[in-house]
Amino acid sequence: MEITAAMVKELRERTGAGMMDCKRALAESAGDFEKAIEYLRVKGLSKAAKRAGRKTAEGLIISYIHPGNRIGVLLEINCETDFVARTEQFQQLARNVAMQIAAASPLGVSREDIPAEVIEKERELFRNQAREEKKPENVIEKVVDGRVEKFYAETALLDQLYVKDNEKKIGDLLKETIAILGENIRIARFARFQLGQ
Amino acid sequence: MEITAAMVKELRERTGAGMMDCKRALAESAGDFEKAIEYLRVKGLSKAAKRAGRKTAEGLIISYIHPGNRIGVLLEINCETDFVARTEQFQQLARNVAMQIAAASPLGVSREDIPAEVIEKERELFRNQAREEKKPENVIEKVVDGRVEKFYAETALLDQLYVKDNEKKIGDLLKETIAILGENIRIARFARFQLGQ
Repeated sequence: MEITAAMVKELRERTGAGMMDCKRALAESAGDFEKAIEYLRVKGLSKAAKRAGRKTAEGLIISYIHPGNRIGVLLEINCETDFVARTEQFQQLARNVAMQIAAASPLGVSREDIPAEVIEKERELFRNQAREEKKPENVIEKVVDGRVEKFYAETALLDQLYVKDNEKKIGDLLKETIAILGENIRIARFARFQLGQ
Repeated sequence: MEITAAMVKELRERTGAGMMDCKRALAESAGDFEKAIEYLRVKGLSKAAKRAGRKTAEGLIISYIHPGNRIGVLLEINCETDFVARTEQFQQLARNVAMQIAAASPLGVSREDIPAEVIEKERELFRNQAREEKKPENVIEKVVDGRVEKFYAETALLDQLYVKDNEKKIGDLLKETIAILGENIRIARFARFQLGQ
């Protein structure tokens, strides 16, 4: 099957991947679009790590307001070019991340964004719990470490399980989209308001 | 003209004002809806001050995203009851305030919300400017006071001129809506994101 310029253009518009990558993906998958997208995804995953350092100055500001107007989220999500920012995949990622924040109420984007004093307070709490449960003194710090790990998994956005698919974390969702779109993507910041809190 | 229960109900739905106030407004304006709304507004203004202390635990979380998704605002605005929160007037006020924040980029809701160090930095800047303009030393602090006043009018949301009607401040817009709806209203907080800033 011949790979036409129109097909390459369409795949590029659907995935945001580079021109040459789209051409190769279509050739490898004999013009089958779904297979070509899958090819880009798999191929892209190995590249995603390399893209992590690249500059992200474009992107979107978007919001999600939960029905009833009692919870709302404002989100800045960055990528490298305005072209990718306007793709359906990027916009969908943005909407899904905003909805995640509304539903799962993270305290920060990554672990590093959660204030040290919050973690220290949690450690103290877990330590007291472990003592009340009569854990031996020599294992208490291990128990506490385990619970802090769980606390991070619940409160750092990138570590949270994706509410729409419990098989992956938000960080994985991000990496997948980086693989498909071929650009570094960064969740820059968010605000989450809940009425009266 | 007879004032029916249906008329009172409709006025109440349109304005959110109390049942007895609506009845009186319709009686005073011989059943003319526009005049009745005006009556409620004027009558309400003198009451607005009294309402300022009342508890605001209801309201809305809303957002405004500027076309192009490069500027976005998240806003919490409170009133006393869910009934008023659901009125068209209250929702319109919320939308207008959110749009104001997007357009005029305030630093805080009221003067008190603008950090003292920001004001001190501005004072220093204005003082140096006044000296460069060779103002006499004995009037410099007066000049600086005047410029700080202008700075507040530009950066405190309630002091800002309403972008859609330069004849009034956002604080006036709020008072007018309090007068019409008969409940205390409070702009609780906002976040304003601009891409890459």
